[in-house]
Amino acid sequence: MTAADFDFTSPPAADPGPGEIQVRIELLSLDPTNRIWMTDMPQYMPPVAIGEVMRGGGLGRVVASRAEGIAPGDLVSGLLGWQDYYTGPPTGLQVLPPGLKLPLEVLLGACGMTGITAYFGLREVGQAKAGETVVVSAAAGAVGSVVGQIAKIMGCRAVGIAGGPAKCAWLVDELGFDAAVGYKQPEWRTALKAAVPDGVDIDFENVGGEVMAGVTNRMNLFGRVVRCGMISGYNDGKPALGDYGSILMRRLRVQGVIVTDFAPRCGEAARQLARWIGEGRIEHRETVVDGLEDAPEVLNRLFDEENFGKLMIRVAG
Amino acid sequence: MTAADFDFTSPPAADPGPGEIQVRIELLSLDPTNRIWMTDMPQYMPPVAIGEVMRGGGLGRVVASRAEGIAPGDLVSGLLGWQDYYTGPPTGLQVLPPGLKLPLEVLLGACGMTGITAYFGLREVGQAKAGETVVVSAAAGAVGSVVGQIAKIMGCRAVGIAGGPAKCAWLVDELGFDAAVGYKQPEWRTALKAAVPDGVDIDFENVGGEVMAGVTNRMNLFGRVVRCGMISGYNDGKPALGDYGSILMRRLRVQGVIVTDFAPRCGEAARQLARWIGEGRIEHRETVVDGLEDAPEVLNRLFDEENFGKLMIRVAG
Repeated sequence: MTAADFDFTSPPAADPGPGEIQVRIELLSLDPTNRIWMTDMPQYMPPVAIGEVMRGGGLGRVVASRAEGIAPGDLVSGLLGWQDYYTGPPTGLQVLPPGLKLPLEVLLGACGMTGITAYFGLREVGQAKAGETVVVSAAAGAVGSVVGQIAKIMGCRAVGIAGGPAKCAWLVDELGFDAAVGYKQPEWRTALKAAVPDGVDIDFENVGGEVMAGVTNRMNLFGRVVRCGMISGYNDGKPALGDYGSILMRRLRVQGVIVTDFAPRCGEAARQLARWIGEGRIEHRETVVDGLEDAPEVLNRLFDEENFGKLMIRVAG
Repeated sequence: MTAADFDFTSPPAADPGPGEIQVRIELLSLDPTNRIWMTDMPQYMPPVAIGEVMRGGGLGRVVASRAEGIAPGDLVSGLLGWQDYYTGPPTGLQVLPPGLKLPLEVLLGACGMTGITAYFGLREVGQAKAGETVVVSAAAGAVGSVVGQIAKIMGCRAVGIAGGPAKCAWLVDELGFDAAVGYKQPEWRTALKAAVPDGVDIDFENVGGEVMAGVTNRMNLFGRVVRCGMISGYNDGKPALGDYGSILMRRLRVQGVIVTDFAPRCGEAARQLARWIGEGRIEHRETVVDGLEDAPEVLNRLFDEENFGKLMIRVAG
């Protein structure tokens, strides 16, 4: 995917109609799911059609409102799209409570959709319990880095799989993971085995493919696989296959998680994450790149192993 | 697999030691899992080693006992093995309550391990609810035929996938399935689509491979896949793969079921199944072949599509 796959246009600004709001977008979240939405395959939302504004999560400030209960100055988050202004109904957008003490970058990252995905994925889908071993892939990413830290808070052993020594060091030294395994090293499966002496109870799976296969091989009886992403396959167009034999033989429970399923409870998760961040129990890292026009190119960093933590675009200067 | 893969031997009969029992085996259950146990691959029990008695479920009568609480004449079921007499500890065997009014064939079949697998797989693992659509593959088999009938009792729509017109007619006309699809017909995916107008909520999966892929394609959001068997792959030695993309996109829950996980509750299931059988709400069919020496050959019927319902060997004349 390159910038040539996108048109950068400047349509005339529309005024909000009855019941609508206009939002100045401040930050856009770049996530592997952007790549899913660009692909014509069955998925959890319709793919973005040719000619439509690219779909994307973001955070912005209301500049005009004809919707009840929403006033200029309010902060809103949700699928605002890759644009300077969102103009339309507030359906599906979330108005953030006033007085939040966290920077916008954190509200979009560790406290936003990716952090909330980690929260519900590990606790509700994964049913993690104290004493269990959690392995998370793409562990230095926006979701994975929070997963491991919540696992530690819950009393689990947290093991991350990531791209290289710098990321692994960050996970262990800064975020408090018990161990990290770089999957590019030739003996990574041996290193993983050593890192999970009691086997794996929960695989929080963001990658798929060979990485997932290595973790499945170490899963305990009745383990859970939280199927959150499959970034290894987003650019190759092949079907994402997995080991159904082990699901039977080890009685694994494999289940998908998409954060929108937990929409009514996102506030609860955000408040808890904010508390942990305030207490210094969840560390976070954001990479913010200025300029909407670079979004297509910056998005590729998610796939070329360069990115630590949450990647975002600053739209408003 | 052929008879040449087995030795048929006549070792001298051993007497039971302290704490042991001796059981005259009456009936042996032939199941796809026998084929798993013969294969040197990771599985839910150790594979049967060269030289060991072939593992198999069965039903027999105690002829001698040095174990407390077990008396000659008692009926026991469990992994008695492919032999005339089991001599050893009663560990893992179940003593059947006296006075059961059902034939031994039914106690080993619809009321035995395969019926109990259907019971817990659909209710506990599948979490089936009234109004949902249940699709079961290998529907004319010992497990599948009971799954569809329990689904009907629970108020679900029951759709079976089976090998041919005779099996499909049996499922609908005799067992009360709402529809049956013969997967060997060229347009079977179209027929399946027509049979599940509201999509599939639960796939009770006994087959794997292409059949499973066709059902997965019709699964609803938040559907459950009860991973009970994968008979399509037991003889080809290939890894059993499945669609992990749909697990994410449709938030499926895929979970394995092995009946031994429910051992403490098997009595509860057997009593309920016996009640339903007594009321005529669960129909059953057994094929009983005389002679232990034919077991290897008869087992192959499970894989060549000939078999209806429960297949068993009568060991004691």
